[in-house]
Amino acid sequence: MDYRLLDVSIFQNLVTPFEGKKSREDEMDPVIILVEPQLGENIGTAARAMANFGVTDLRLVRPRDGWPSEKARNAASRADHVISKTRIFETVEEAVADLDMVYATTARQRDMLKTVRHPVEAAQIMRQTTEKGGKVGIMFGRERWGLNNDEVALANEILTLPVDPDFASLNIAQAVLIICYEWRMSGQDRKESLPFETPDVPRANKEDMVRLFGHLEEALDEVGFFRPPEKREHMVRNLRNILQKGDWAEQEVRTLRGVIAALQRRHERHHR
Amino acid sequence: MDYRLLDVSIFQNLVTPFEGKKSREDEMDPVIILVEPQLGENIGTAARAMANFGVTDLRLVRPRDGWPSEKARNAASRADHVISKTRIFETVEEAVADLDMVYATTARQRDMLKTVRHPVEAAQIMRQTTEKGGKVGIMFGRERWGLNNDEVALANEILTLPVDPDFASLNIAQAVLIICYEWRMSGQDRKESLPFETPDVPRANKEDMVRLFGHLEEALDEVGFFRPPEKREHMVRNLRNILQKGDWAEQEVRTLRGVIAALQRRHERHHR
Repeated sequence: MDYRLLDVSIFQNLVTPFEGKKSREDEMDPVIILVEPQLGENIGTAARAMANFGVTDLRLVRPRDGWPSEKARNAASRADHVISKTRIFETVEEAVADLDMVYATTARQRDMLKTVRHPVEAAQIMRQTTEKGGKVGIMFGRERWGLNNDEVALANEILTLPVDPDFASLNIAQAVLIICYEWRMSGQDRKESLPFETPDVPRANKEDMVRLFGHLEEALDEVGFFRPPEKREHMVRNLRNILQKGDWAEQEVRTLRGVIAALQRRHERHHR
Repeated sequence: MDYRLLDVSIFQNLVTPFEGKKSREDEMDPVIILVEPQLGENIGTAARAMANFGVTDLRLVRPRDGWPSEKARNAASRADHVISKTRIFETVEEAVADLDMVYATTARQRDMLKTVRHPVEAAQIMRQTTEKGGKVGIMFGRERWGLNNDEVALANEILTLPVDPDFASLNIAQAVLIICYEWRMSGQDRKESLPFETPDVPRANKEDMVRLFGHLEEALDEVGFFRPPEKREHMVRNLRNILQKGDWAEQEVRTLRGVIAALQRRHERHHR
């Protein structure tokens, strides 16, 4: 009997409930809709951009070079889970039919009285919508000329990116990246959103610092650093202020005391 | 004499002072340092990402395939102004020598007691530094394995991106894109940062809305919509609440009144 195989199947049974929960959470994430994308590479890099921020529902309306696309899968890097469940639609209307709120991304002003949102605002609005059980999506247009006005008219609001007007040249994957980044940020505490954080080590307390001061001052006294003697008080105060700025951890202060001790010993050897 | 040519040269003289001002502003933008980038394409797409957010000072430490790079220039799309002034350095120390504060980007925890910052925080800190006249930079590592620990040790703080820990796969240009996006955001009012905004048209006031209500109710009275008559009051209130939700502009209300008028005429024709 292969115990490792058994272990795996037991483990799989155990994680099923969690996977169920996870897929419900996934349903809260926005749907990314690419309208008539031309290059498979761009579909793949968009999928990869999505996956970085945990967004996985990709829909394509009439991809020019057909589907499935080997180029898309290659460009997606490890985002196979996005590519595998990508769905294809004949019309934009069908692609957005189950959505409660849709953004149209556009890089240029349209002659429409539609509210224009910054990615931060749009992410917050989408988050509020999904928290009430709504399903949201973001439409991206063709590489060459974006969405047409009929497609924009299907959207609730317009989403645009704060690019330099003198050099606006984001490709689809870059636009997807920034919007998915803002989506992820909108749902998390900023600190918790990072994959790792500042090491949580004990800071040196004042006792540690006063010992460091004393040790350094002793070492400097040994080599006659504080000259003339009437300036010693001022020089000590100055040094203590300099050392305070380090805002060090306990172990860093220990390292520095080791440095001082080593320099003291060097001095002793020197004079032996 | 070619007047158009003359106009151009006069115009160029006039804009010189502004261009001077602009280049001083540029000096406040962070420097992007790519350490031993392998592919010219990645240098080019990083330059393009920078240009979208007005960041133009790119420095390369020992690019693997040499410099200048045709591949970099092609991938930079229209960001020639970034590629043309890109500078090459032999060591990271030289590349950051004139900077007052440097961030090291890394996707994984290092065994160092260095503060880890989110892009939003890092952008704010860099902005504060530049406002006091300091010059800041952000280092990005090699495609394969990032920055080494000696390079990270040169930095003041660590910068990492809030990616999904289960799928962290940003390329250099994408990391540059998000950090430059946050840099641009940190210096601008969110609304002003967009290339265009929601059209500023007069909203319909209550008089416009009450006229719309009256017009629709009159048209519906003509076709006997409010039945039975004792329910009219409730139905009218309901309709008015529905129409209020549109939060329309004056010209949109005019369009709707045109729609109602057209339906009234159709009805009249029908009964003629």
